[in-house]
Amino acid sequence: MSQLGAQRVTLPMLGSAAMWHKTGRWDALGSEMFRLTDREDRQLCLQPTHEEEVTRLVSMTAQLPLRSLPLLVYQLHWKFRDEPRPKYGLLRAREFLMMDLYSFHADDACARNTYDQVLKLYSSLLGDTLGLPWIRAVASSGCMGGIESCEFHVLTKPGEDRIVRCADCNEPCRNSEGGRIALPNCLSPAACRAEFLTGLEVGHCFILGSDRYPAAFGLRLIDQNHHRQREQRLLSMACYGIGVSRLLAACAEVASTDTALRWPLAVAPYQLAVVSPKAGAREPRLSTETMAELVQALGDAEFNPDAPLVDDRDQLTIGTRIRDHRLWGLPCSLVVKASVDGGISCEFVDNYQPDRQSERATVASAAEAVAIARTFIASISLK
Amino acid sequence: MSQLGAQRVTLPMLGSAAMWHKTGRWDALGSEMFRLTDREDRQLCLQPTHEEEVTRLVSMTAQLPLRSLPLLVYQLHWKFRDEPRPKYGLLRAREFLMMDLYSFHADDACARNTYDQVLKLYSSLLGDTLGLPWIRAVASSGCMGGIESCEFHVLTKPGEDRIVRCADCNEPCRNSEGGRIALPNCLSPAACRAEFLTGLEVGHCFILGSDRYPAAFGLRLIDQNHHRQREQRLLSMACYGIGVSRLLAACAEVASTDTALRWPLAVAPYQLAVVSPKAGAREPRLSTETMAELVQALGDAEFNPDAPLVDDRDQLTIGTRIRDHRLWGLPCSLVVKASVDGGISCEFVDNYQPDRQSERATVASAAEAVAIARTFIASISLK
Repeated sequence: MSQLGAQRVTLPMLGSAAMWHKTGRWDALGSEMFRLTDREDRQLCLQPTHEEEVTRLVSMTAQLPLRSLPLLVYQLHWKFRDEPRPKYGLLRAREFLMMDLYSFHADDACARNTYDQVLKLYSSLLGDTLGLPWIRAVASSGCMGGIESCEFHVLTKPGEDRIVRCADCNEPCRNSEGGRIALPNCLSPAACRAEFLTGLEVGHCFILGSDRYPAAFGLRLIDQNHHRQREQRLLSMACYGIGVSRLLAACAEVASTDTALRWPLAVAPYQLAVVSPKAGAREPRLSTETMAELVQALGDAEFNPDAPLVDDRDQLTIGTRIRDHRLWGLPCSLVVKASVDGGISCEFVDNYQPDRQSERATVASAAEAVAIARTFIASISLK
Repeated sequence: MSQLGAQRVTLPMLGSAAMWHKTGRWDALGSEMFRLTDREDRQLCLQPTHEEEVTRLVSMTAQLPLRSLPLLVYQLHWKFRDEPRPKYGLLRAREFLMMDLYSFHADDACARNTYDQVLKLYSSLLGDTLGLPWIRAVASSGCMGGIESCEFHVLTKPGEDRIVRCADCNEPCRNSEGGRIALPNCLSPAACRAEFLTGLEVGHCFILGSDRYPAAFGLRLIDQNHHRQREQRLLSMACYGIGVSRLLAACAEVASTDTALRWPLAVAPYQLAVVSPKAGAREPRLSTETMAELVQALGDAEFNPDAPLVDDRDQLTIGTRIRDHRLWGLPCSLVVKASVDGGISCEFVDNYQPDRQSERATVASAAEAVAIARTFIASISLK
């Protein structure tokens, strides 16, 4: 988000009915929206999305001159939807963590420009950073309104969306929205070889324009030389959301096998877990100093997260602890012992490929162990 | 929290009526609790606190052997209360950020031990880290139940609690709970010189024991050698909460003056803001390389947060930007220019004491500037 120049905000989760009535969405959202009343009998909702709240906030800014546009604000915050079928844990939950971004522009062309940038960032996140099978699909804007929208889907079984794609043409994929719609602009309409894919929606982007939100909250461009605000034109707006908690569940869903929890390396809770021999075992343990040096060096190497997990449950055997690491989805376990010549005896275990031979090396320094760890972790694959 | 060995969790904000009925608090909490129904007409609440949810979670853990106790879990998450008088922004809001900690123990003595540790940590946070005027007061456990509890108050005007303290004795302070109760164990009861202080509650700790929550959810100690669970005794429990968003507002309230927003240095958004001359001004700007070196060195110096704010709104005068820094509560502005001999001309401005003379120095290297910045920032006071 900082690449885009977006500023982080935290908006209220409770929203007033009065505010939602301004855009007509209090009624439009129906049973998806949790509603409640406060002690004064005022109607509130648990906000399922924040276009109203953020537009209201920006419209309350005393002055929004042209040079402060485009204005981008984002949240990493919780939302609520009264799902008809909450299931699969975080995949379809009634409260969920979202990274939602809102952009405000002098005109629609500028909004489209930012929209295109965000599409690239989302694509890079799903494909490059997380290595997930994903697809972008043209979608209807639904009750959000606006000019254009597209969805990002992870291709995985628990998904509930049917994405239609033609094998013959470059026509963008399209959410079939439940029905068997074919591609309207297929280059080979007579023999459209449309196939249907199962997608789990993890992101949605909209060019909203000016009609709904800026119009409802009177969000207009203020010209420095011309303060008669009502004659100025409305701002244009776009919004973007990634379902963070759902995406995390989708990562586990796609990367795991029947017997092991696995994560894309970028989101593994720890890329590396360090294990010493069981207390009382015959194998010699590293000295406290050497162990501290090693852990420090592994921490400085900036595996994800900053520090390795030191699994010091020394009352358990090495094997029991490594089985736990597989349960937790840690890609690499590193078993360390003291070697007879005063070095560090290392064994690197690939928890994502149980059949792979572990890699053994005796090294003289923590730095050497880190170098091998780096190569070994880079070689761990989800294939 | 990591000092205590506590693990972070994130519990649901929506809680079921069924769960809250188990402890009798669905009825006891009355109009403070936001209530709603979902699409299946099931009753839910927006949880104002999480004793029920966390006890339920821990009781669902397959096995909780003695050696895994004490078990400490904490959240940094949002809670809801239908405040009768929501006001003063974050000071009294209906949704608020809390750091809440829950500890589970083999017996009450162990619970008290952790309770005492947390009391020390909270005291150190309020007094040493934030430098706030604060007081700890004995309090009633209210609808929370339990054996003992105490509150942490920041002494500031918008507070709504009246804390009674006797000038003659060492009797702990006590929340007067609205009435003019005197100190029950005052050493000089005949002439009890009780005074009343206005406090804003920012923390509350409870030794809860076993009767309410562990009993309601059947949370019992499992002896490894003795699996007949129903004969085992209930765990003991304690809980602790700091109102993070309220504390932030209390910091601003206590530290600010009538004309300037000020923060305790530990929570200032940036301790240091770097400003160059206005674009087109006669004063010479630092070269891009020197500026980058300086910003890097200031970042490495670990002022709070990691990097300084570089206020590059170069279309504004230096004075205008420093006025903004005062509005935002940044303690120190550093004005940098190129000096004739190739060095860095620095001017350190104390935004918390507008009458204080700014400090000027011409230095040969970024490291020298950092050294002066360190001393200067340490000298900034909220007095």
